[in-house]
Amino acid sequence: MKEKGLLIVLSGPSGVGKGTVRKEIFSQPDTAFEYSISMTTRQPREGEVDGVDYFFKSRKEFESLIQQDKLLEYAEFVGNYYGTPVDYVKETLESGKDVFLEIEVQGARQVREKFPDGLFIFLVPPSLSELKNRIVTRGTEPEHVINNRMTVAKEEIEMMNLYDYVVENDQVELACDRINSIVVAEHCRRTRVEPRYIKMLEAE
Amino acid sequence: MKEKGLLIVLSGPSGVGKGTVRKEIFSQPDTAFEYSISMTTRQPREGEVDGVDYFFKSRKEFESLIQQDKLLEYAEFVGNYYGTPVDYVKETLESGKDVFLEIEVQGARQVREKFPDGLFIFLVPPSLSELKNRIVTRGTEPEHVINNRMTVAKEEIEMMNLYDYVVENDQVELACDRINSIVVAEHCRRTRVEPRYIKMLEAE
Repeated sequence: MKEKGLLIVLSGPSGVGKGTVRKEIFSQPDTAFEYSISMTTRQPREGEVDGVDYFFKSRKEFESLIQQDKLLEYAEFVGNYYGTPVDYVKETLESGKDVFLEIEVQGARQVREKFPDGLFIFLVPPSLSELKNRIVTRGTEPEHVINNRMTVAKEEIEMMNLYDYVVENDQVELACDRINSIVVAEHCRRTRVEPRYIKMLEAE
Repeated sequence: MKEKGLLIVLSGPSGVGKGTVRKEIFSQPDTAFEYSISMTTRQPREGEVDGVDYFFKSRKEFESLIQQDKLLEYAEFVGNYYGTPVDYVKETLESGKDVFLEIEVQGARQVREKFPDGLFIFLVPPSLSELKNRIVTRGTEPEHVINNRMTVAKEEIEMMNLYDYVVENDQVELACDRINSIVVAEHCRRTRVEPRYIKMLEAE
């Protein structure tokens, strides 16, 4: 009996380290899930590779995909579009593999509507002041942008109630361990596995 | 802010290996939870130690504790009583530590009524025939006892719907990893941790 894969959605406030955590998870050789690469219209940061970190697209290309309903979710964030191509996600889940999305909170809300039984994980900083430190340390933005980000982050933390799990990003390795544990646990959730055991019992 | 510990309840059909899994978990040096030792009126098996594996009691002593309402749960199983002393569990949870119970399914049902937000884990064999093999291999029971056990086990697997999680005991180490993952995940469950983050946001 082939079971559909789990849709795992990692989101959280801007600057909390979603990308770092995602990269660490996928650097582990025994990672059992497939990463769905997002599309964005923002400029690549240093070291980011098209088709690896993101699919980098022009606004015109992105808006064309929106028109064709080819995005599972999309959001405009700090002036740029971010989105998830839908076909890859659906095909991979159907094949029985878990799919991992790392997306902004606006997008996670859209995915929740389409995949209510997805596994929604909210990444949070150990404290809001720690969040501010990380944004400042990144050092690429002027102060008014940072203050704006803080306001956005507070709003996003208030959005926590859309999620199933909350993972503190105190250390990247610990956050990854927690996320991996959540996926293992979710595969053991009774409501997901009960049909398989009922079948086993009938076969005896 | 001190949070109450989690009550973790491991149960499952007779012969599935609950005791072996529990011993393996508590042999790990980084186990973060406290084991609640059960009471029983059955005879110690070879190597079992009073106050370590069980508190071994006479029927008279056990029935006196039932009368005094000193048991969180108890059950009579294959002619013997098994039960959980209540005071230790409540005090340990209040102190913020997780408590681990390994009990029979009848007892788990009683605990569910008293602790509806406990973490209930059902241990299952990879197949029912595998379950039968293990009971036969134990080699201490005549065939009619084994057949009776199989009937009981089928009924118990049908009781799976009382539990939050189902863990397959295909290999003891894997079962322990899954249980540890479930506990980690449960500590990240949004409904458990949200109050802490709301407080953090208000303090900013």
